[in-house]
Amino acid sequence: MKLEKYIRTVHDFPKKGISYKDITPLLQNADATKEVVKKLAEPLKNQHITKVVGIESRGFLFGMLLASELNAGFIPIRKLGKLPFDVESQSYDLEYGTDQIEIHRDALNVNDRLVIHDDVLATGGTAQAACKLINKLGGNIIELNFLIELNDLKGKEKIIEYPYRSLLNY
Amino acid sequence: MKLEKYIRTVHDFPKKGISYKDITPLLQNADATKEVVKKLAEPLKNQHITKVVGIESRGFLFGMLLASELNAGFIPIRKLGKLPFDVESQSYDLEYGTDQIEIHRDALNVNDRLVIHDDVLATGGTAQAACKLINKLGGNIIELNFLIELNDLKGKEKIIEYPYRSLLNY
Repeated sequence: MKLEKYIRTVHDFPKKGISYKDITPLLQNADATKEVVKKLAEPLKNQHITKVVGIESRGFLFGMLLASELNAGFIPIRKLGKLPFDVESQSYDLEYGTDQIEIHRDALNVNDRLVIHDDVLATGGTAQAACKLINKLGGNIIELNFLIELNDLKGKEKIIEYPYRSLLNY
Repeated sequence: MKLEKYIRTVHDFPKKGISYKDITPLLQNADATKEVVKKLAEPLKNQHITKVVGIESRGFLFGMLLASELNAGFIPIRKLGKLPFDVESQSYDLEYGTDQIEIHRDALNVNDRLVIHDDVLATGGTAQAACKLINKLGGNIIELNFLIELNDLKGKEKIIEYPYRSLLNY
């Protein structure tokens, strides 16, 4: 199955000059969705993954399915102010200014073997911030994975210390 | 399995006087998550559901799992400005001011048999707006379902025209 045919490129979104990769055609197709989950899960089957960490909000989509497939728990990393309990916070740079993501402090422990998932690896800023959050809490990052990687933005350089995979490259 | 024991009540979040129902302990437990999906899916198994509509962002969590379980596609309803293609928009009232959600116009057609899912039914404002979006596009709403219903907020009165279910009531 060619997953690429379910990814729609929308030009000039969210602003002029950006070619946005729209995954909604893929989400609408149950078979394509199952194929993504299978490919994300396959190399992790014997890795004793205890929890999948998904980054709000599109990382929730395949993050939950991957967790279920691996029989692992799911941990959401959310935007500032969304998680109700005791949180660890991490800021990261945007093109203009900074943003912040958070994780519950009691979400994981030092024995956890974790996968971090997001739909797109772009500049890598969010992925790097997610790794920092996990490290503050002492979790063991086994892999980061992404449905899509935008090669030109060199996000992989920001997560160089960790194994990572992307299913589709642009 | 008592799902209630995986829901944590956090007092005074997001503001003084509110008792927030935190589903993150449930998400961390693979068995509890599977039980939720089983319960959401069971009465829908013979309903020929073609797509599950999940409301950003916590509706993505069990919405994707429910879609997968029913072998159906998934349609995200997102906050204003997040969906890249041609959208239908709907505003709804908040305590102060209004908010807006959107759906892709090509996400569904008149033959689709849809389930709308969100994690919590509170005042029902978002759920009602989601129904309006689906109706504008001619979709057939078979059911709305929720993990949690906050009874005092009377959200069900806003979706009175449609069958709905919630797994947990507070």
